[in-house]
Amino acid sequence: DKQAQKAGQLFSGLLAMNVVFLGSAFICSMIFNKVAITLGDVWIFLSILKILALGWIAYYLLFTRRKPHAVLYRDGHAGPVWVKGSLMLFGVCSILLNVFRIGYDIIHLQCKSQLEILFPCIEIPFICIQTYFIWHHAKDCTQVQHNLTRCGLMLTMATNLLLWLLAVTNDSVHREIDSELNKLMRAFEGNRTSSCKCPNTIACKVFQRGYILLYPFNTEYCLISCSMLYVMWKNVGRRITQNHAARSKPKFEIRGLIFGPLLGISAVIIGICIFMLYQIQAANSSPSYHVFILYYSYYITLLPLMTVGALAGTIIHGLEERELDTLKNPTRSLDVILLMGAALGQIGISYFSIVAIVAMNPKGLLNSIILAYSVCLIIQHITQNIFIIEGLHRQPLVEMETKGEKCEDSPSKAYSLEIRQEIRRASQAYVQNWKRKALQEISSFLIMCNIILWIMPSFGAHPEFENGLEKSFYGYSTWFAIVNFGLPLGVFYRMHSVGDLLEVYRSA
Amino acid sequence: DKQAQKAGQLFSGLLAMNVVFLGSAFICSMIFNKVAITLGDVWIFLSILKILALGWIAYYLLFTRRKPHAVLYRDGHAGPVWVKGSLMLFGVCSILLNVFRIGYDIIHLQCKSQLEILFPCIEIPFICIQTYFIWHHAKDCTQVQHNLTRCGLMLTMATNLLLWLLAVTNDSVHREIDSELNKLMRAFEGNRTSSCKCPNTIACKVFQRGYILLYPFNTEYCLISCSMLYVMWKNVGRRITQNHAARSKPKFEIRGLIFGPLLGISAVIIGICIFMLYQIQAANSSPSYHVFILYYSYYITLLPLMTVGALAGTIIHGLEERELDTLKNPTRSLDVILLMGAALGQIGISYFSIVAIVAMNPKGLLNSIILAYSVCLIIQHITQNIFIIEGLHRQPLVEMETKGEKCEDSPSKAYSLEIRQEIRRASQAYVQNWKRKALQEISSFLIMCNIILWIMPSFGAHPEFENGLEKSFYGYSTWFAIVNFGLPLGVFYRMHSVGDLLEVYRSA
Repeated sequence: DKQAQKAGQLFSGLLAMNVVFLGSAFICSMIFNKVAITLGDVWIFLSILKILALGWIAYYLLFTRRKPHAVLYRDGHAGPVWVKGSLMLFGVCSILLNVFRIGYDIIHLQCKSQLEILFPCIEIPFICIQTYFIWHHAKDCTQVQHNLTRCGLMLTMATNLLLWLLAVTNDSVHREIDSELNKLMRAFEGNRTSSCKCPNTIACKVFQRGYILLYPFNTEYCLISCSMLYVMWKNVGRRITQNHAARSKPKFEIRGLIFGPLLGISAVIIGICIFMLYQIQAANSSPSYHVFILYYSYYITLLPLMTVGALAGTIIHGLEERELDTLKNPTRSLDVILLMGAALGQIGISYFSIVAIVAMNPKGLLNSIILAYSVCLIIQHITQNIFIIEGLHRQPLVEMETKGEKCEDSPSKAYSLEIRQEIRRASQAYVQNWKRKALQEISSFLIMCNIILWIMPSFGAHPEFENGLEKSFYGYSTWFAIVNFGLPLGVFYRMHSVGDLLEVYRSA
Repeated sequence: DKQAQKAGQLFSGLLAMNVVFLGSAFICSMIFNKVAITLGDVWIFLSILKILALGWIAYYLLFTRRKPHAVLYRDGHAGPVWVKGSLMLFGVCSILLNVFRIGYDIIHLQCKSQLEILFPCIEIPFICIQTYFIWHHAKDCTQVQHNLTRCGLMLTMATNLLLWLLAVTNDSVHREIDSELNKLMRAFEGNRTSSCKCPNTIACKVFQRGYILLYPFNTEYCLISCSMLYVMWKNVGRRITQNHAARSKPKFEIRGLIFGPLLGISAVIIGICIFMLYQIQAANSSPSYHVFILYYSYYITLLPLMTVGALAGTIIHGLEERELDTLKNPTRSLDVILLMGAALGQIGISYFSIVAIVAMNPKGLLNSIILAYSVCLIIQHITQNIFIIEGLHRQPLVEMETKGEKCEDSPSKAYSLEIRQEIRRASQAYVQNWKRKALQEISSFLIMCNIILWIMPSFGAHPEFENGLEKSFYGYSTWFAIVNFGLPLGVFYRMHSVGDLLEVYRSA
């Protein structure tokens, strides 16, 4: 049985690997040789993959799932509410994005090929059906047709991965064109009017603006789908012991907390103000020196606070005597790997910044602030990761009470001893309560901070590009590649941390 | 205990990650901005790392190891003979490489900085001491000073990883200069004599030639050291049950095999002849059309044979009734991961080739042969991986005999039944023997093939560069980056397969 499972995983994994490699080669060819392979070719390839994936999903929904004993067990850890919620949110955003794109393409119909309108039309049903499928079946541990299910899941996952890759690279192209166009338009203003320029109607502006605003959500949607499909793939054929499945989940409540939410909300409000200032300047021209100072100052005030919070939380975790939860749990292992992997994006960018600044050795306030910002980012990522990983491996609080009962177990004790025990238990409960509250304060603060740090880059504040320091050091295209690889991962990291911190908050 | 182990692994892993990131940023800066950060700066950084790593190794050898109860268990799977042997071989080659480099630098003393001679002088003791350390302590499961040992191992591993990264990128620079120089020298022959040209002494030519020939071995040395240090890191604090440690190893013997070795040796001999032809042409000028045809024809004859062999082996594995070995085994897990990971290099190159050829749609014998070659390579890698992974997870043959005894166990049987049983057992043993022999034939053939496929690229036959097809499609620098990432991994894959196939051969 175990052997068959290993073989099935190996086979479907190899299938996915080949599809991903072929697709990556396609996409890279498109980037480096635009003549031989066009974006259209890549879209055709992806559409074929999408149709295959849709076919398998339909088969699963109609046949596999309905077989007797198809889904005997459901993995309680897979697909928590916050992941499903963000999947739904990003799915809706992606559909809107495609609607905007169709609108935009129809306006520009005279200078685009008819084929290009077809692709968003395939994309919309793909997103709808896939979201429905993941929403309802994320917890399934399928027990029939193992190999077909594994291959189907891997195919769907490979499709999402390639869509992500295309979105990341295409985003780069899009930004490049965008910035080039801005310059060109300022230079040749009024000199010539191309038939492909956006006519000055409101509809076109809305479509264009919506397209640019919603773009980051599409990449996030692909990443989330991938991670959930991976968990489903891991769960195929898995048998869950009853003990493991029936774990009581502590309720989520926010009463009695003061400092964490207060600090967090003020951080969010200040952040939004600074973000607005930054965006207003960035929309018209390059942001000014003062806005950069403001932006980076905000970060180097907030990040050390977050670091201190995470450190304090880690220390409190260390003081607790709860047992570590060492049960096998694919969802949690994946969480930890994703957290560490996604952190690499931002940490990589920061190290590149540090080397560039130290090597150029420039004087000036802005440069020292950028240096401090990069160092703070690295430290903050590491401490937060440690805090979250420690938190995820704690048993929920239920364990504690049984421990308390165990203390009571020793029979025939004197009255004074009983009182002493009572006091000890009360003080223990008080300390426990205090620790619990502190952990909740810290996690609620970190949640708020991560939300604002997630909003700012994902809606388009990219000072790494606009300050021009690293760009001049590494050269435009190299720095572009570094940032374009790291930034989406950084945004995903913030989103993922929010989810994991919610988990830590609940289990505190 | 488990908690402390997890925390220690997390902490030392984060340390290594930071060192690797900082070093990568350094090396990338050097590549993209040669003015601000020179090769000298990178060497200084790496020398500091080497000295730190040497300091820890010395501390381990002198103190940690001598503490009471320091090494209670030894992991029998870690550091098999073939890995240790290749470590030693590559270590000696790396030292020779550095000796050649020192000689070369001394000849060119007038146009190089004094500092540059210092680095090979640090490199030599580093390689010597590290090889000694890994040779003697690869099997250790250290039980004291966990955290220090983990950090030290990770630091040493990060150093090796960065040395590898530098070697790969530097190799590219070196090749680029080499090919440029060749062109330049042909163009300006006799026009001017730079003081930095190799004088026409034999010593200089020998140093230069030796440097170029030995270069690939250095990269392999770093990769092997990394993988062995990783296993040591995984084994820190591990307690091995006696049952697991005392596994009898079947002896390695080669008697009674005919077809496998015969076919393999003829493949090796033909391969060496073609390699010689290729190299003689490549040394003088670009290889001719006929040599390419010959080279690729050799591959597309050999690769399908290997594929058939691996498939047959997988089928025989499937027919066997031996149980899978599912005990925890960090060395084997690493083997499998390295095998799959290293295969990605060559598979990636092949997919890029395929897309380039299909997109350009060129007619001609050479192009169709390259296409067939790429497809064969992908299939061969996948089938060989499956065969090796299946083989590594088999129990050694000892298990079979106990099974045979179990059959005998039922008491009080009639004479005829006994005879029938005897016949059945004999025929079972015969079939078993036949299967065993077939597996050994196949693995010996695959070992020979992998050796020749490992020799050819590692001594400098790179038709991917020289045929010019993909180069013109992707552009020089992109194709250079793809091949330079993929080829060293491909060479490592061949070497690693040889080792794993030896393991499969022994356990067959």
